[in-house]
Amino acid sequence: MAEWVGIGRRARRCYGFDEIALAPGKSTLNPEEVEISWDFGGKNFPVPILAAAMDGVVDVNFAIEMTKQGGVAVLNLDGVQTRYDNPSEVLDSIAKATPQEATNLIQKVYTTPVKKELVAKRVSEIKKGGGYAAVSCIPQNARSFGPIAQEAGADCFVVQSTVTTKEHIATKYESLDLTKFCKDTKMPVIIGNCVTYDVTLELLETGCSGLLIGVGPGAACTTRGVLGIGVPQVTATIDCANARDIFYQKTGKYIPIITDGGMRRGGDVCKAFACGADAVMIGSAFARTKEAPGRGFHWGMATSHSNLPRGTRIEVGISGTIEQILVGPALVDDGSQNLLGALATSMGCLGAKTIKEMHYAEIIIAPSIQSEGKMFQAMQRVGMAK
Amino acid sequence: MAEWVGIGRRARRCYGFDEIALAPGKSTLNPEEVEISWDFGGKNFPVPILAAAMDGVVDVNFAIEMTKQGGVAVLNLDGVQTRYDNPSEVLDSIAKATPQEATNLIQKVYTTPVKKELVAKRVSEIKKGGGYAAVSCIPQNARSFGPIAQEAGADCFVVQSTVTTKEHIATKYESLDLTKFCKDTKMPVIIGNCVTYDVTLELLETGCSGLLIGVGPGAACTTRGVLGIGVPQVTATIDCANARDIFYQKTGKYIPIITDGGMRRGGDVCKAFACGADAVMIGSAFARTKEAPGRGFHWGMATSHSNLPRGTRIEVGISGTIEQILVGPALVDDGSQNLLGALATSMGCLGAKTIKEMHYAEIIIAPSIQSEGKMFQAMQRVGMAK
Amino acid sequence: MAEWVGIGRRARRCYGFDEIALAPGKSTLNPEEVEISWDFGGKNFPVPILAAAMDGVVDVNFAIEMTKQGGVAVLNLDGVQTRYDNPSEVLDSIAKATPQEATNLIQKVYTTPVKKELVAKRVSEIKKGGGYAAVSCIPQNARSFGPIAQEAGADCFVVQSTVTTKEHIATKYESLDLTKFCKDTKMPVIIGNCVTYDVTLELLETGCSGLLIGVGPGAACTTRGVLGIGVPQVTATIDCANARDIFYQKTGKYIPIITDGGMRRGGDVCKAFACGADAVMIGSAFARTKEAPGRGFHWGMATSHSNLPRGTRIEVGISGTIEQILVGPALVDDGSQNLLGALATSMGCLGAKTIKEMHYAEIIIAPSIQSEGKMFQAMQRVGMAK
Amino acid sequence: MAEWVGIGRRARRCYGFDEIALAPGKSTLNPEEVEISWDFGGKNFPVPILAAAMDGVVDVNFAIEMTKQGGVAVLNLDGVQTRYDNPSEVLDSIAKATPQEATNLIQKVYTTPVKKELVAKRVSEIKKGGGYAAVSCIPQNARSFGPIAQEAGADCFVVQSTVTTKEHIATKYESLDLTKFCKDTKMPVIIGNCVTYDVTLELLETGCSGLLIGVGPGAACTTRGVLGIGVPQVTATIDCANARDIFYQKTGKYIPIITDGGMRRGGDVCKAFACGADAVMIGSAFARTKEAPGRGFHWGMATSHSNLPRGTRIEVGISGTIEQILVGPALVDDGSQNLLGALATSMGCLGAKTIKEMHYAEIIIAPSIQSEGKMFQAMQRVGMAK
Repeated sequence: MAEWVGIGRRARRCYGFDEIALAPGKSTLNPEEVEISWDFGGKNFPVPILAAAMDGVVDVNFAIEMTKQGGVAVLNLDGVQTRYDNPSEVLDSIAKATPQEATNLIQKVYTTPVKKELVAKRVSEIKKGGGYAAVSCIPQNARSFGPIAQEAGADCFVVQSTVTTKEHIATKYESLDLTKFCKDTKMPVIIGNCVTYDVTLELLETGCSGLLIGVGPGAACTTRGVLGIGVPQVTATIDCANARDIFYQKTGKYIPIITDGGMRRGGDVCKAFACGADAVMIGSAFARTKEAPGRGFHWGMATSHSNLPRGTRIEVGISGTIEQILVGPALVDDGSQNLLGALATSMGCLGAKTIKEMHYAEIIIAPSIQSEGKMFQAMQRVGMAK
Repeated sequence: MAEWVGIGRRARRCYGFDEIALAPGKSTLNPEEVEISWDFGGKNFPVPILAAAMDGVVDVNFAIEMTKQGGVAVLNLDGVQTRYDNPSEVLDSIAKATPQEATNLIQKVYTTPVKKELVAKRVSEIKKGGGYAAVSCIPQNARSFGPIAQEAGADCFVVQSTVTTKEHIATKYESLDLTKFCKDTKMPVIIGNCVTYDVTLELLETGCSGLLIGVGPGAACTTRGVLGIGVPQVTATIDCANARDIFYQKTGKYIPIITDGGMRRGGDVCKAFACGADAVMIGSAFARTKEAPGRGFHWGMATSHSNLPRGTRIEVGISGTIEQILVGPALVDDGSQNLLGALATSMGCLGAKTIKEMHYAEIIIAPSIQSEGKMFQAMQRVGMAK
Repeated sequence: MAEWVGIGRRARRCYGFDEIALAPGKSTLNPEEVEISWDFGGKNFPVPILAAAMDGVVDVNFAIEMTKQGGVAVLNLDGVQTRYDNPSEVLDSIAKATPQEATNLIQKVYTTPVKKELVAKRVSEIKKGGGYAAVSCIPQNARSFGPIAQEAGADCFVVQSTVTTKEHIATKYESLDLTKFCKDTKMPVIIGNCVTYDVTLELLETGCSGLLIGVGPGAACTTRGVLGIGVPQVTATIDCANARDIFYQKTGKYIPIITDGGMRRGGDVCKAFACGADAVMIGSAFARTKEAPGRGFHWGMATSHSNLPRGTRIEVGISGTIEQILVGPALVDDGSQNLLGALATSMGCLGAKTIKEMHYAEIIIAPSIQSEGKMFQAMQRVGMAK
Repeated sequence: MAEWVGIGRRARRCYGFDEIALAPGKSTLNPEEVEISWDFGGKNFPVPILAAAMDGVVDVNFAIEMTKQGGVAVLNLDGVQTRYDNPSEVLDSIAKATPQEATNLIQKVYTTPVKKELVAKRVSEIKKGGGYAAVSCIPQNARSFGPIAQEAGADCFVVQSTVTTKEHIATKYESLDLTKFCKDTKMPVIIGNCVTYDVTLELLETGCSGLLIGVGPGAACTTRGVLGIGVPQVTATIDCANARDIFYQKTGKYIPIITDGGMRRGGDVCKAFACGADAVMIGSAFARTKEAPGRGFHWGMATSHSNLPRGTRIEVGISGTIEQILVGPALVDDGSQNLLGALATSMGCLGAKTIKEMHYAEIIIAPSIQSEGKMFQAMQRVGMAK
């Protein structure tokens, strides 16, 4: 796996979704008979898909609708929903900004401080609507927001930063003790993001209920360009799934891993499960729904950094409802709708009856481009060639 | 062949047509003296090319014309030809739809049920016109349509689905027993599609007369994007050809394999034979003929799925007759016409006197793009650069 | 070098110019002191570059001018120069044809038969002008045109077809015996094209004075797309240079090999020499000269095939004189002019004093694209991105 | 690392910035607590970034401003600053030239000879403004300009050519003895450019204070296209860093290496340090500043060659100040601004407290394109796709 990249230095070749495909096995199944539900935090969810904690994707209403569909949406406690009593105006202004103005406007909007009372209020609103209240913040805010959210009745807490490790070194502030935080928090805690075997093992020992896998792959994220950091999702998911299995063998505890980011189409979702994911977290595809607060736009969590923005506002348009994205009917043929139908059909074609059997589907290396023909087809699809 | 794609997980590198080329050998032949005919179902066909069972490609008239040229065209029994007494109107409306409307219209058109009397009628029409009547349907319809087609005088029956395996597991309906179906059917049966050595061996044991090789490569097919499933045709053809040869060594029965999909130009056809194909099945190139019912358009068989369309209507235009596509004269220089001339010339340059000798031509790995120069040339061809 | 491309089948990875680069060595030289002349047919030529036998590149006048510059131009005896007393009109009409009409027009123009008296006339005209008369034809015409050209005073004869092997099998006509032809012909004979070690060794045994290396790489050639055949020039040149050296060790005869096609810029020419070429043959770059008869257009020799055209008329424009292409001054910075200056400077940077020392320059594998940055730069150059 | 590229010939696979990424480690750090300063010539500089000796990037004023920011700018003594008393008019005319005229105009502008009095004057002007006076010239001019610059109070002298080796062979002029030059020069000497282990070791023995690493990677440089020469920066930096470490182990002298060219974004800068760079030299990013003399344009040093130009004038526009490029706030999200913030954040995410610890960050091979998805994203960024 490791190749020489210079004298005395080797590097692993890592793979992304577009570089692999799934190969059929020896039997096929009726897609209507496959089982795609997953267990998390002592509860079974029919839909193994989470909506990402992005301000263009999840608000209170979206979380309630996502719960109705059987999935989970995570509300960002560091964003516009907790900075503004009425975030509609702000979201309107972001949607109306020109591409040139967008990053600066987002930087400015996020200088208004978070109001703690809004943290509790958003949780209560989701609960009142019958929703599953999953909320997230960065490690620096977890000690403060965690208890407030818990008090307000939240169901799940997500501690999320670009790269999370058990050990974070700082002399100017006290680092968050993740083990203590998981112990002190009564609801299930998800930690992220990580991409390596070692860190997965360490984070699983904190007592968390789930891990987010992925650094740098999302469409609205420019971490790789700005920081040079990123691990493609196929290798990241396989490595972390391996650590999950080892941890399960040692402890008897099966903690699900959630591949987060970089899945544009149903095929990418299917590949994530074949790589070992128990669930997937998706941003862009949900940003396209009528229910999303972004009005056809979305942007990464690091876009708002005042000194070093690491995200882009992307115009995705509005193309369907949450229900269409999840169970169809698909009005388009590009794989961006009916993700659960795609997953079930893929599992049927591959002979996998459950997500755990899907973890053993055969992966092949088969770059989707790298050839004139595929390039031509890609260009045709984006209207660059006939 | 297998490389590490993550900790504890290996994957084979598979290859597509654009990633290989054929290298000349030690002698050359006069192209006019090569032999390209193939044997199928106890009959010798001068042309080792089949037209795909797609509604934009084959109707009764097309099948008759293709027979005159020495080849075989397969009529789709699940499509517009058997759903509508007069399919012309429907085909007109599909051709006139805007790109935005096309998928939805195709979904709607295919909700009209198949009329069994039309199954028999189409077969009879082909026979009356002197054509070789090859017809196809999905496994669920085979027990019903097979006897009707046989009764009506069909010459060949194709059972085709995205991924076909000998074992298909379902509790809600009875799976098709392929061995029994082949035994009960008096005409030769072709089964497809498959892409692996193991499944090829199992399917050959059903008593079929031919296999279709290919999952996900065609231009009008989005299986890879939607389901994540696909095996590039070079590796798929080599693997299945190997199984065919092993089966022949064991049983003395030589069952031809037909590479289906992903061949845009003469060069791709030549490569398929060098990989071990006995014949090839082509869609897009024939959709461009004057005889094709698609009026310059074609679409994949899964485009019509009501809940999860997996195909695209592609505008290919009309650029020649079946005869021009097969034996020229080519009016264009891009390899899309005179496919048999290209095959014969290629065999001459490679010193292969027969298709079986062509199976031993030297393959090299030589990506057609991956370089600025080739990219530039590709862009020139599609008018993106000067 | 060989990788598995399917079960039981391996293939060599072959490389093209855009996939390699040259790495500096331990010393550098003053570029003005390197030696780039080459020996061919008992004569020393200051310029190791030949102009290709293409109708858009070489006519009588071009050959005379090329001789003045120290190089060699090959006149095509199968083309318009010997089919028409006054080829100007024909060349005008080809230049004025629309892209749609071009292939058909070229097909039609080449149906007029070659006049043997024009073979002799063109040779005489070159000699009268003080030029080195190198002429070429396909193997089928060699027995007829060879003696005529020799009689008329030709200096060099080139027998050229897409793929040439010592053994050509045909029952309907008598194959050209290359050994006999070389023996019977008093002037030096160049044979081409070939791309493999084995065939190079066999062709060197015919008694020829030079070999052309290259199948399918040229910009105006669509052999790879139409026939699937092609070997990238880096591997082809290295393999054939190895055969040349083995032949030299066995026989004491050093027969130069000439890399033919696929070199767009000075850098490609430098790489060809580093791969082992003794000289290079170039088409497109010379088609751009004021002296070229193509009026800013050129096309491959197989473009004219009536049934299976395998070339494209490409508009290259007119950008300088033969002198500028060879020795500058370059008015552009893309490496298409002052090829000899580029070669000398490259040799200086690499510390190679002679072409034979250049054969030992270090090659590295470094794809020129395959990365977003390089793709972006390529797009900038063709005006697709800012 | 070496692969067969032809019979009897192997080549190393070398890597560029776009083909690798950095993978997070086991701990993270507060980015505000990392240490990025570097030591050069007995002095500590807070900013490990140098501005390249290009006429569109550095003039007297730019050098003074760069010093204020803690970095170093190198003034080109072979360019317009020393050829013209008032270079403003010349720079204006270059900026106003059409793309067609630019190369020719630059060729013409550089025919005016360098005035030695301007060498001294520019150094004095930088010193008077409180700047660190680093100046550069080609080896042929070093013996003449070195003493003049030293006399005028220069702080650092750079001897730079496309490819520099300790041994340069010439009979028509006396080669520069680099060891003698370093000995005779009292200020620290930087030599460049080199890309290999062997040459780095030899050049370190000359007594220089720093080395420039990089041949052919820059955006304004066409060396690879014109001469075929180039080594991608990841492999070049790793190889040369290895030689630096070996030299340090042998001699106890730690001589910094400076990766020069090919870094477009913060991520590329981070990768250069992870490959072993002690500092980086950047052209294009600084050409975009308000302080740069190029008025939104820049061009390579070899663009002016009268006979063989090897550079391109590129329009980069004006997008910020030196301060914004270095420490932000970034107004854009593409990684081209706040390079030091990006470096510190990357080091924090990777758990590297110092540049020397950054040398041990994990590199992975993960091509940034090569896939349809990434290609699509790249096209979106340049406005070619939606």
